[in-house]
Amino acid sequence: MEQHTHRLTVRTHGKGLLPVTRPVLDWVSQTGVETGLLTLWCPHTSCSLTVQENADPTVREDIATFFETLVPEQSGRYLHSTEGSDDMPAHLRTMLTHSGLTIPVMDGEPVLGTWQGIYLFEHRRAPHQRQVILHLLGD
Amino acid sequence: MEQHTHRLTVRTHGKGLLPVTRPVLDWVSQTGVETGLLTLWCPHTSCSLTVQENADPTVREDIATFFETLVPEQSGRYLHSTEGSDDMPAHLRTMLTHSGLTIPVMDGEPVLGTWQGIYLFEHRRAPHQRQVILHLLGD
Amino acid sequence: MEQHTHRLTVRTHGKGLLPVTRPVLDWVSQTGVETGLLTLWCPHTSCSLTVQENADPTVREDIATFFETLVPEQSGRYLHSTEGSDDMPAHLRTMLTHSGLTIPVMDGEPVLGTWQGIYLFEHRRAPHQRQVILHLLGD
Repeated sequence: MEQHTHRLTVRTHGKGLLPVTRPVLDWVSQTGVETGLLTLWCPHTSCSLTVQENADPTVREDIATFFETLVPEQSGRYLHSTEGSDDMPAHLRTMLTHSGLTIPVMDGEPVLGTWQGIYLFEHRRAPHQRQVILHLLGD
Repeated sequence: MEQHTHRLTVRTHGKGLLPVTRPVLDWVSQTGVETGLLTLWCPHTSCSLTVQENADPTVREDIATFFETLVPEQSGRYLHSTEGSDDMPAHLRTMLTHSGLTIPVMDGEPVLGTWQGIYLFEHRRAPHQRQVILHLLGD
Repeated sequence: MEQHTHRLTVRTHGKGLLPVTRPVLDWVSQTGVETGLLTLWCPHTSCSLTVQENADPTVREDIATFFETLVPEQSGRYLHSTEGSDDMPAHLRTMLTHSGLTIPVMDGEPVLGTWQGIYLFEHRRAPHQRQVILHLLGD
């Protein structure tokens, strides 16, 4: 049984879902692990990870709209406001989605369904350099 | 340290929470693993996994009602509508719950609490054949 | 490759986020594992786990307010009400956050970001003795 780790850097340019499936699959493939367990971890509190439909881009627009309504940016709504009006909503949106994902690996690939893509969900307006930490255990 | 994998098939007949605890516990037991880490993965974008109270069935009715209100099916609300009015709500409900669960195994069983059951949460009205992929690492 | 397990006891005194980062880090450190995978599991259906900003305490107040609004305690709203008005909201809040967290370990520590803290999110008003089960795999 082997362990592999990697740090993926993702540059974001405002709110939204950014696909990371391709670099994740490439890295898993490079390790040569056939059967194992892949974990992704997002070490930030204002962006998160999610698995979503990878086909129709309007899905991602609907997700953005839904979260703007569910967790509104609204002046005076939050006590924690010194870091900007998008900061507290960012924490809440992170909490409602995921900081980590753990996916089995079979036949050398994470067992994603045909329509499943892995996304970094950026919740801040300003550009950020984000990290996704990858850990793979298997053989 | 050993790895075991399994594909569980679950037939759904409309929206709702379907218990999968029993076949999951049975499979873990068959592997003979005493201490380890169990991961379940749902390779779909319109159903998800959750852990919930397994005793009073009204809990599951309340969950259904809550999600109908939180993520309404509403004509004209979503851009992504070609696959039916329950499709985009299905993606959002999946995102707010879980595509995967990772549970420690001790004394030959996942460490579920007395009232915890594992459920596949179907978000589509039409019947579907769903898969839950199981991965167990341990010895 | 080694496995380590531990049961952490957390006494809660009403609703809110209780930090558990320190005892988790201490336990990981004691195992001597340098690279591995840490899993936390909360074997309850009315409290949950989350990773949140650990600096400004108003973040935790905003989270409390947000969840009171998103999943209201409201007489007559839920069918499942025999265990108290905070019980069904507790199940729903658990479902919208996490029963488990899986975090890679590198250089002897979980790869938490600077601002990430691990919290037990208690959803019941009455004091409870809660458990968080820890599982660490690595070497």
